[in-house]
Amino acid sequence: MTVEERPDPTVGEMHPQRWGDPAAAAPLSEAARGLVELAFGLEQRPPVAAPELPPPALGADLLDGLRALVGADHVHTDDATRRLRTRGKSTPDLLRARSGDLADAPDAVVRPDGPAQVAAVLAYAVERHFAVVPFGGGTSVTGGLAARREGYAGLVSLDLVRMKRLLALDETSMTATLEPGLRGPEAEQLLARHGLTLGHYPQSFEHATIGGFAATRSSGQASAGYGRFDAMVVGLTVATPRGPLVLGSAPAGAAGPDLRQLLLGSEGTLGVITSVTVRVRRAPTASAYEGWRWRSFADGVAAMRTLAQAGLLPTVLRLGDETETAINLAEPGAIGAAAGGAGGCLMVTGYEGEPATVRARRVAVTAVLEGLGGTPLGEEPGRSWRAGRFAAPYLRDAMLDVGVLVETLETATFWSRAPAVYDAVRSALTASLGEPTMVLCHVSHVYETGCSLYFTVATRQGERPVERWLAAKAAASDALLAAGATITHHHAVGTDHVPWLARELGPVGVGILRAVKAELDPTGILNPGVLVP
Amino acid sequence: MTVEERPDPTVGEMHPQRWGDPAAAAPLSEAARGLVELAFGLEQRPPVAAPELPPPALGADLLDGLRALVGADHVHTDDATRRLRTRGKSTPDLLRARSGDLADAPDAVVRPDGPAQVAAVLAYAVERHFAVVPFGGGTSVTGGLAARREGYAGLVSLDLVRMKRLLALDETSMTATLEPGLRGPEAEQLLARHGLTLGHYPQSFEHATIGGFAATRSSGQASAGYGRFDAMVVGLTVATPRGPLVLGSAPAGAAGPDLRQLLLGSEGTLGVITSVTVRVRRAPTASAYEGWRWRSFADGVAAMRTLAQAGLLPTVLRLGDETETAINLAEPGAIGAAAGGAGGCLMVTGYEGEPATVRARRVAVTAVLEGLGGTPLGEEPGRSWRAGRFAAPYLRDAMLDVGVLVETLETATFWSRAPAVYDAVRSALTASLGEPTMVLCHVSHVYETGCSLYFTVATRQGERPVERWLAAKAAASDALLAAGATITHHHAVGTDHVPWLARELGPVGVGILRAVKAELDPTGILNPGVLVP
Repeated sequence: MTVEERPDPTVGEMHPQRWGDPAAAAPLSEAARGLVELAFGLEQRPPVAAPELPPPALGADLLDGLRALVGADHVHTDDATRRLRTRGKSTPDLLRARSGDLADAPDAVVRPDGPAQVAAVLAYAVERHFAVVPFGGGTSVTGGLAARREGYAGLVSLDLVRMKRLLALDETSMTATLEPGLRGPEAEQLLARHGLTLGHYPQSFEHATIGGFAATRSSGQASAGYGRFDAMVVGLTVATPRGPLVLGSAPAGAAGPDLRQLLLGSEGTLGVITSVTVRVRRAPTASAYEGWRWRSFADGVAAMRTLAQAGLLPTVLRLGDETETAINLAEPGAIGAAAGGAGGCLMVTGYEGEPATVRARRVAVTAVLEGLGGTPLGEEPGRSWRAGRFAAPYLRDAMLDVGVLVETLETATFWSRAPAVYDAVRSALTASLGEPTMVLCHVSHVYETGCSLYFTVATRQGERPVERWLAAKAAASDALLAAGATITHHHAVGTDHVPWLARELGPVGVGILRAVKAELDPTGILNPGVLVP
Repeated sequence: MTVEERPDPTVGEMHPQRWGDPAAAAPLSEAARGLVELAFGLEQRPPVAAPELPPPALGADLLDGLRALVGADHVHTDDATRRLRTRGKSTPDLLRARSGDLADAPDAVVRPDGPAQVAAVLAYAVERHFAVVPFGGGTSVTGGLAARREGYAGLVSLDLVRMKRLLALDETSMTATLEPGLRGPEAEQLLARHGLTLGHYPQSFEHATIGGFAATRSSGQASAGYGRFDAMVVGLTVATPRGPLVLGSAPAGAAGPDLRQLLLGSEGTLGVITSVTVRVRRAPTASAYEGWRWRSFADGVAAMRTLAQAGLLPTVLRLGDETETAINLAEPGAIGAAAGGAGGCLMVTGYEGEPATVRARRVAVTAVLEGLGGTPLGEEPGRSWRAGRFAAPYLRDAMLDVGVLVETLETATFWSRAPAVYDAVRSALTASLGEPTMVLCHVSHVYETGCSLYFTVATRQGERPVERWLAAKAAASDALLAAGATITHHHAVGTDHVPWLARELGPVGVGILRAVKAELDPTGILNPGVLVP
């Protein structure tokens, strides 16, 4: 069925120096403030107000050319709009923005509507040799929006905000075709009108977009039940400088390499995703979330592995290590308060679906977890986690305000390597950052053969916090690669991870990426410096 | 854990003009013979005995060079060995071989042992510009072994028969690293020693190899329970003319495009797969197979869709259409005998696993199928299907012997398009082949969003059977592409499907394949003419 539906408006733009909805920002709770003071001391570090932008570099005729392609109302060069399209939301991004450095601002923000306008802008970019950075939600935490601009006539943020339609719905095949500019809640809103859901809830859900989910191989908090975003995609249309690419005539097949899997994760460097056809599910009519305590992280991880290898997963399955559990990061609003008080490691299990399915799955999972020595904590910890599931980035802003550097990094590996990867990353971070440093970890995505490891780090900002963090991140990245893990499970490559991607893929793998890039984007206008080593 | 285990010998070489184990060949049963006589008439068409081969084209010095690389005992130019490495096992392949045409025979069969020898042969192929055709089980049905030889010094069959080791086993992560030359039963034998299974049972299982499964994106009869082969692969090592490629440091990730998915399905055109790391499972300790009757194919397909979308699949799930059910193709040994006698469509459901899992899954699936109006037929039809699951290709030989052309083709599409694809392919085949023609169909691989459709065609050989079949196949391929399906769900591209692959991918997609090919195999020595348009 072809439809053409648009969502009602949801959240607005993010603050240029903070995460998320400016109205949702809040100072630290008393308990958290106490914890921070004890661990790191308090030092007020408010952001510089309304930092200056470099003047736009694009000439008037080039801007006129862009206006002719997308309409005069959809080419923006004002500071406010450009400021909101500058870099992403990693801690280095925020620290730079907070210190007043918005040097990476785009020269213009251009808003095409539909694949023809996207293609026209790309053709014009080739003709005039300006760089194009596709922009969805602006939530990159790996420098995915900080393209190189040397050698280009300028840098244009290709903002997909006008492309927010549900284009087609096939309730027999259970697929929906979505435009790339739809944010998570907008896509869910459109699907909910038909009783459907995508079930993709990354922490960036409220701001990130369908196009970004696909371009970065996003993975959501309910990945145990709904799968990674790349596993939901059955079709893609992509505008490339070589022309349009339309992929996906069957759920799976043997018609050569699966080129969908080459465009998924391409981070705007090979083309601009103009629509994504995703598998959808019936919206759940029941849910249950609960907590479990494990004596140790190793015990909890073993339980997750048992569930994954038995094909018996809840919809949400996550486990904090001893440190993360102790400071109660699963519940950002109550951080510093005791997490049930008994030590060990907190696991959250969540079930979504039909009432009968939720019940049956919960009974089966409960039997396994009890058999393995887990202690059920009832629904409260699950409910709390769920209520705060998108809140951690706001907490980071509040910590940055009082002089604490908070950042995350993540990886995935096979089960047998996970303990060594865990140790190696923690050691590298603490060795690089020095005391006082806290390293927290949780597992939130599992597979039959392995799992993700997600680390949260807190240390004093001190002098040169960006440089100190980048050194620590490099040490952690070296360590995890050496231990046999991937440089990223769901944060993508951006500019930050490029050197480690090159090592992970080796010279022949890098050669493949470069060859595909040269084929689809021969003049290199798409996100230069991102992804491709 | 690093291991180095080899299997005990299993089945021998296939007959050069027939499928499978020569000892397993059998004439038609009386019932089948009667059916064939009624439908098509009988006409003895025995194969030409020991057909002539063209003389090997490679010079003595080049052969000496190969001997220096892999050992003198592992370079073969005798007729018997070359004959067994000529083409694959499509009906046109067999008809040509039966008529005495072995013009596509390789000039030499070279058997490297290990990635270093494979790399050395590739380097030598670049230096001397001969074509290299990787050879596993020789079961291609799409011309995957019929590489182009014009412009090359000769054509070498790179037979991976010496590479049959289980290289590593990780029982924590449940992965095994297998060499490419292991046949299906050999791989299962090695895994069974550790209580494990791969669970991959394509019809070619007894002869096809691990490397071939990966290179062609094979899908097995138990795909509902164990998944497609490409979904089992977590790591690959590949020898390319540019050097080695090592992929897979985590089950899944966001480190750019998934290059594993570019090498899976690459059919020996981008490199030679030298090892495959696959997810394994505990060997099942219980199984149950049974039959169901559906009033119509549409009803049965709707039931399969319901199961797939409910996440409630048996290990094996297949459904014949009315014609396939009527002639009892699910049980090749009893073809022509009544299939339970009541018309409609036969579904086979099979369950494998722990006894409790088998029981619970069977109860749940049974409830759904009964609720949808399926009639349970008990275990006999399931047992019969299972007993004959690898037998159909032998039946084809027996049919070819009596003048009937039998061939298969397959596709996949989304559920909503399946009825139109089904109709379009049947119409195209019957219109092209004329009466008497029988077209049978079954669904044997399902996904949440769609399914495969597998057609079996029988018609008189008559004059010029190869040309008549190729015209019919072209008409069917045109029709299925027009109806929105893929040119192949699990038979791969080979040389036969290249023109349709080009249409399916479009010019930009073809450009990607060509660019990757040019990068990894710049002089085009690997399987020229296969896959890449």
